[in-house]
Parts: sequence; structure tokens; C-alpha cells
Amino acid sequence: MQPKTAFQSKTVVTDLVLPSETNPINNLFGGELLARMDRAASIAARRHSRRIVVTASVNHVAFNRAIPLGSVVTVEAKVSRAFSSSMEVYLDVWIEDRESGECIKANEAIYTFVAVDEMGRPVKVPELIPETELEKERFEGALRRKQLSLVLAGKMKPQEASELKAIFE
Amino acid sequence: MQPKTAFQSKTVVTDLVLPSETNPINNLFGGELLARMDRAASIAARRHSRRIVVTASVNHVAFNRAIPLGSVVTVEAKVSRAFSSSMEVYLDVWIEDRESGECIKANEAIYTFVAVDEMGRPVKVPELIPETELEKERFEGALRRKQLSLVLAGKMKPQEASELKAIFE
Amino acid sequence: MQPKTAFQSKTVVTDLVLPSETNPINNLFGGELLARMDRAASIAARRHSRRIVVTASVNHVAFNRAIPLGSVVTVEAKVSRAFSSSMEVYLDVWIEDRESGECIKANEAIYTFVAVDEMGRPVKVPELIPETELEKERFEGALRRKQLSLVLAGKMKPQEASELKAIFE
Amino acid sequence: MQPKTAFQSKTVVTDLVLPSETNPINNLFGGELLARMDRAASIAARRHSRRIVVTASVNHVAFNRAIPLGSVVTVEAKVSRAFSSSMEVYLDVWIEDRESGECIKANEAIYTFVAVDEMGRPVKVPELIPETELEKERFEGALRRKQLSLVLAGKMKPQEASELKAIFE
Amino acid sequence: MQPKTAFQSKTVVTDLVLPSETNPINNLFGGELLARMDRAASIAARRHSRRIVVTASVNHVAFNRAIPLGSVVTVEAKVSRAFSSSMEVYLDVWIEDRESGECIKANEAIYTFVAVDEMGRPVKVPELIPETELEKERFEGALRRKQLSLVLAGKMKPQEASELKAIFE
Amino acid sequence: MQPKTAFQSKTVVTDLVLPSETNPINNLFGGELLARMDRAASIAARRHSRRIVVTASVNHVAFNRAIPLGSVVTVEAKVSRAFSSSMEVYLDVWIEDRESGECIKANEAIYTFVAVDEMGRPVKVPELIPETELEKERFEGALRRKQLSLVLAGKMKPQEASELKAIFE
Repeated sequence: MQPKTAFQSKTVVTDLVLPSETNPINNLFGGELLARMDRAASIAARRHSRRIVVTASVNHVAFNRAIPLGSVVTVEAKVSRAFSSSMEVYLDVWIEDRESGECIKANEAIYTFVAVDEMGRPVKVPELIPETELEKERFEGALRRKQLSLVLAGKMKPQEASELKAIFE
Repeated sequence: MQPKTAFQSKTVVTDLVLPSETNPINNLFGGELLARMDRAASIAARRHSRRIVVTASVNHVAFNRAIPLGSVVTVEAKVSRAFSSSMEVYLDVWIEDRESGECIKANEAIYTFVAVDEMGRPVKVPELIPETELEKERFEGALRRKQLSLVLAGKMKPQEASELKAIFE
Repeated sequence: MQPKTAFQSKTVVTDLVLPSETNPINNLFGGELLARMDRAASIAARRHSRRIVVTASVNHVAFNRAIPLGSVVTVEAKVSRAFSSSMEVYLDVWIEDRESGECIKANEAIYTFVAVDEMGRPVKVPELIPETELEKERFEGALRRKQLSLVLAGKMKPQEASELKAIFE
Repeated sequence: MQPKTAFQSKTVVTDLVLPSETNPINNLFGGELLARMDRAASIAARRHSRRIVVTASVNHVAFNRAIPLGSVVTVEAKVSRAFSSSMEVYLDVWIEDRESGECIKANEAIYTFVAVDEMGRPVKVPELIPETELEKERFEGALRRKQLSLVLAGKMKPQEASELKAIFE
Repeated sequence: MQPKTAFQSKTVVTDLVLPSETNPINNLFGGELLARMDRAASIAARRHSRRIVVTASVNHVAFNRAIPLGSVVTVEAKVSRAFSSSMEVYLDVWIEDRESGECIKANEAIYTFVAVDEMGRPVKVPELIPETELEKERFEGALRRKQLSLVLAGKMKPQEASELKAIFE
Repeated sequence: MQPKTAFQSKTVVTDLVLPSETNPINNLFGGELLARMDRAASIAARRHSRRIVVTASVNHVAFNRAIPLGSVVTVEAKVSRAFSSSMEVYLDVWIEDRESGECIKANEAIYTFVAVDEMGRPVKVPELIPETELEKERFEGALRRKQLSLVLAGKMKPQEASELKAIFE
């Protein structure tokens, strides 16, 4: 299988924040943003694997900045690392002020998808080749995050998660 | 402020999986489940604080088990620990087979909410008193998870996250 | 077929009232509440029968109390009586004030469902055993309501509806 | 206030049955039809009163005939009688087969609406003048149905519901 | 195949403008109106052909008049001319003020549909017989509009579009 | 006001075709695509003007190619010419096959938006500077299309539409 670059899976979804998607203080609902990010990330994973993909996990997502009603929100998703049949997708969310046109980073998120066949069985996916500095940094971090997932799920002992353990020393 | 039990914030949302919410292999979309869990968790946080609440973060969520079209899905949310103005909410998701009536644990998730006033400024929330064994266990884990969030956000040095660091030793 | 208790079909659906579901005076649309109650009631009927169920009728529903934007609404549904292949489902709707946490009964409703096979043909359902005082009272009333339905549909002569006729004497 | 005819409030809503609105045996969900009827009926009540209107009650609705996926459904609503500030709206639902074009009566329903001012207080509505035979028949029946509602709500003694009582003698 | 009148395909869809369908200045979104018109027009084309129909094109649509939140909107669609397997559908959109009951023409639109079989292949449709003055005028204009479509799509030379060319002379 | 390039308003919206958005032969509904294009085009117009924008008209849109269930659809919108307070937005729609990854042009569309203030009154917008060959071609065509709109709306005599008239000679 031909390896692919992160750029080849890049998926951009730009949309408005409508009144039906906001909480009582007029900011976008967390749940609505989670669902939008899942859709964008699944398209990126599909572009990388050309397979049916299913969400396997959501890593830590912090909602650092409220997204007010009427903003234009851009979700950008790229595969950051591929493992045997799973792909880590890194998302950047930007908000754009209508009047100034200014773009601000609202938050980042990391989802993991698994490529499956029509029966839902995992299938192999191409390798991911990082190109830019940022892509390389995220590629490296992906291994630590995978270890963290395994530790949290009780499938790996903390002492064996060598890359992860290193950051606490 | 009067402390509250986890039971007092317990929120149950039972619903069907409809055709418009499923992926190409006929299972509930990850993004749809994330949005349902956010709604249930926000009601639990609201019941604990009696305030407007906004999603602050989503901790690790693993989708261990596909949820097929036509299932009855029950999301149960309870506040697991309260900090100054934030609340960790623990969710358990169950699926029920139509024919056998059998209930299976589909997955767990942890969201964090912040209580705010009408201007979006954080406000104090009551303490959480865990009662059952499981509630106590989740209450204890909440501190480690909070440290993990701070470390991942670059707001705490890994070496200072004493409870978290301990598990790697 | 093993008889079942009302408790075994108990279904709880808690949700918020969002801006897109309200009328010009900022209360939940009647139609939206009717649809939510239908979903909850269909899950209760399904839990009792473990079959596909279809809505057969809606009995008198009174909207006694407006449900304002931002309320938490809890719909609770339980099978109140089973006939050959049909089930009467009794619903209680509660609203909860965000600030005081106070719960108020908003309204009651009664739906009837029929259990069917894959071809849409009626199939037998288990008997319902009422346990509490309230369940027993609703169980008794169900027969009168069934007669009323038959009379209104022109399938029974008013003079033959003995239980129903008795209340006018 | 100028009395109005039923024709002046006539409201027609024709729409398709889409896949996202059907149950496991591919027929329109009861809850979805209840919501569509509520919308059509509220427009009819609004046309009669030229006021904000809120759903007060749903009288007996029987789902006599399943409405299959892909059907064209026509809901027709007309005010059948006006009381002081409330209006009874009578609905006829028709389904149309795509291939034969044949129209079949699927069911009837009766909703009651109250006209209110911006504060939600009931306001007076014009009288309804029935014209056709069918409109006259429904106008007469409306009084019996109003008594039945009052009896069921415990606001009138069965013995005092003279029009209603008569049908059991 | 029996020719049909425009009246036989007449489709009326009356609905409210809800908060979730409005733009920042509280008028109905253009996109939402385009979607409503497509649904109404597709039912008209289906009634004319009794076939599956798919949208082939949208001719010029001008949004002359804003449709404010809370209006009752009536979309009326009728087939204006049938060609071999395609049908031009003419739509009139009316808005009704809640307080005065006054009806104002908001805009007109013209959509074209093609009738297809289950495999998506075009099939023949009945001829359209215009009856009223307005129907005759629209029937005539349909030929010029068809030529305009072909010219714009590069499938007909402007010089060969004789009916169309005539209006510039 | 500083003129802007087409590139500065470029808006990309990538999304899946879900089951609830398809017609009986499993292709994306025309109305759904019209609504998606309206949203993307409105964001492009907003980025050019930094104002509230409202849809003024939809020019000829041809649905040349069916978009099957499960496709990834990319809508790309750019302002093609600005007039005093209106902007023509040109859209290109691409579909991507899941298995081959192949991208095919599905259709083009042209919408016009007007920039308005909070009261809905038209306001001036910056000039548009076309850069690429395609942008220049679309910029030129915009004037002919504007004349065509005016002629079709009866606001300009065909004989006065000099650019438009020229193509028929």
C-alpha cells in the first residue's frame, strides 16, 4: 500500500453557528461542535484509507474559547499518524469574526478512527508520511497518546508505556 | 453551599437509534453519540449547580462496542466530582437488544462542565459527596484526570502532577 | 407468555427545551411534546412486548401547563394495561425549574400501541400486572378508555359499553 | 368581532414521507404525524383568530391506516367550532399512492387551541359559522367533545354533561 | 398517455417560519426557501407523471421580498409544461401577516424535473394542457426558457434559439 | 474601500451525503444541495463584504450529475464580481468516490447576495479583483448575467441589454 501525506487527507468544513445550535448564553453547544468535528475527521480518515471508517475514540478535547452565535467556524482535519488499521486525526478549529474578519484558534481535538470492511472487520490502512514541522511533531506525539489510551483502557501497564512514562521523569 | 450527592444529579436519557443517525454499516455515528452524551451530561451538571453550564472538556472516550440501528440506547450521567466552579460528569452508556431485552454496557465517557453566570463568568458550585463504592472510586480518579488535563494543556508540569505521576512508578 | 410488571417497561427521557422547539411566546410547541411522548411510549411498549410496535391511538391529552424555553423536561412512560396485542401506555410529564430545581407535573397523556411482526400483523403480548396503587387505578381505567375508543370509532354501541356507561348514571 | 366560516381557516400541508421519519416496518412514525398535524392545526387556528395560539389538548386520534415510506401525505385542517377563547380544529389526513395517484383517507384528528396575547393570557376569538353538511355535523359534535374533555379532566360531573350523557341512553 | 391539466398537479404547502430557519436579521434563509420549493415542486411533478422525479435545474429565482420570522408561508406549485420526459414546474410563494391576515406575493420560481425509472433512466410523461390565461402564458414562456437553458449549457447555439432570439429584436 | 481578490472569499464545505438527504433512487435531493450551496455562498459573500448578507437571487443551476448516497461532496464558493451593494458568487460542486478517491465536477451554480445593515438596507461592498483566467472569465460573464436578470424581471428592455444582446447576433 502506497504511503500518503497528511495533506492528502486534509478536510475543510466551514459553516455558520445558527440560533438552534447555541446554549443559553448564545455560544455554540459543545455537543454540536463534537458532532461537526466527528464528521470532518471521518472524511479525513476515509480519504486516507478509502474505506468505511468508524470512530474508535475521542482523546482529550478542551473547549478553550466560546464560539458565539453568528460566527463562521472552520474545522480542519488531517490524519496525523496511521497504525495498522487505525488512524489518529488531528483537528484545528478556527473562528472568524464577521466584522473584523479576524481568525482565532478556538480549539484542537484528536479523534481516532478504524478502517473496516462491509462486515465491520478491521482492514489495513496506508502509512502516513508527515511533511511539515507541525505534522512531524503531531506524528511523534501520536505514539504517546496511543500508549495513554491503552493505559487508560487497562490494556497496557503504565510501566510499559515507555514514551509516555518518559515525560514524567 | 449545601454539598450534594451524585444521585441528586442522576440524569437518564433513553432513546432509539434511527436510520438518519447511522453510518454505512448501520451503526450509530460516533458524533451523534457524542452529542447525546453532551446533552445528558449538561443536564446532570445543571442539576448539581442550578446554574447555566458550558462544556469545558471531553476526556478520553472509547467507542468499544458498535450500537446497531434499532437499538434502545440509555445514557446515564452523574456528577462524579465538583471542583471550585467545574464539575466532572461520568457517563455510562447501555444498549438494549429489542428481542432479548438484554442490556450491555456500550461505553463510558467523562465530560467536564463549568458553571457560569449570565455573562459567562465562572461561579462556585456545591461540593459532591460520593456514596456508593463506584462513586467513591470515580471521585478519587477525578483528581488524576484533572492533573492529566492540566498537563496536556501545558498548564502544569508533569513532575508536579503527583497523583498522576504515582501511577507510572 | 410470562406476565410483566409496569416497572419493567418504565422509560425515562430527560431533555432540554431548545430555542428551535418553542412557539412565539417561548414555550415548547405542543407538536414537539407529542412527538417526544410518542418516542418514550413506543420504547415502553417495546420493552413490554419485545416486538416492533406501532402507534394505534392517542387518547385525550391536555396541555395544562406551558413548558418554558430552557426547562428540563422529563417524560416517564409505563405500560398501564395489556390487551390481546395492544398496550395502553400512561405518560407523566414533569418540568424542572433551572434555578430552584423544583419539579412540577406538567401533564399526563395516554397512547395505545399494537405489537406487530415484520409483516405488520398483530402479535400477542404478555399480560400486565399492576403493583402500586396508582398502577392499579390506571389499569382499571384502561378498560373504560378502551370502550370509549370503540364507541368513538363506531365499533361499539354506547349502550353496550357497560363500564363507561356506568359513570354517567 | 366578525364571525368567520370554516373555509376561511382551511390549511393544506402536502409533504412526502422520508426515510428518516419511518419506523422499522417502513411506515410514518406516529409521533411525526402528530407533530405535522399540530403545525397545520395551529395555522388554521391562527387564521381564524389572527392571534398567537397554543395547543390546549389533543382529543382522541386513531391511526387506522399505516402511511408507507414514499407516500405523499396531505393534512387538511379547519376550525370546526369556536368557544370563548378556544377553537376546536378538525383534521383530515389523506395519503396518495405514487403509482396509481389514488387518494385514501388515512385518519382524522381533533386538536384544541387557545388564542393568547403576548403575555400568554387568553383572548376572545370570532364565532365559527359552519356551512357544509359535514361542517355542521362537526360543529354539533364539538360541544359533546368539550363536555367529554371537562368530564375527563374532572372539571364537570358526568351527570351534568347533558349532550354527552344523551348518547348513552 | 392521457394529457393532464395544470390543476391536476397543483400542490399547496403551508408552513410557519421558525426561529431555526432565519438569518441574523430575522428573515427566512434563502436556502431554506429553495429547499421547501424543491419539495413542493417535486410533488407536483410526481403527481403529473406518477413516476420518481429528480430535480434537473433551477431557473432564475429572485428573492424580491424578505419573509419575516413568524409568517405563514404558502408555496403553490403546478406543472407549467411537459416536454418528452421533463416537466417545468412554476411556483408562487405567498406570505400572510399574522395580525392583518393580508396575503402578499413574495416571489416566483421555476424548477425543472425529469421523470425516471428505478434505474434512473428518463421515461415519458403525459402532455400538459394549460387552461387559465396565466397557465397559457407560462406554457408559452416555457419554450423560451428551455432554449435559454440549452444556450447557457452550451448545447444550443444562440442563433438557433429562435423563440428566445426574437425577444432581443 | 479596499478591493479584494476572489481568493479572499474562497469558502470550502466538505460533507457526506447521508441517508436522510436522499431521494427514492438514493441520490442527494436537489433541495438539499440548493440549501448547502446557499450556506457556502453566503459565507463567501460575508467574507468579501464583512456584512450581513441576504440571498437576492439564484441564477440558472443545472443538476448534471446525480450525487449518490455515501459520496463526499465538496462545495467551493468564491465571489466572482461585486456591484454596488450586490455580489455574484460562483459555486463549483465536486463529488469524490469513496473507493477510487476520484473527484468529478458535479455541477456549477451562481447565486447573488446583497450586503445589508442591521435594518436590512443595502450597503456598499468592496470591488472584486479577478486574478486567474477562470476568475476573469466569470467576472466578465457576470455583467451579461446581471442584464439577463434585469430583463427577466422586466426591469430592463431586452434591446438595452447590450452585452447580452450581442451573443444572439
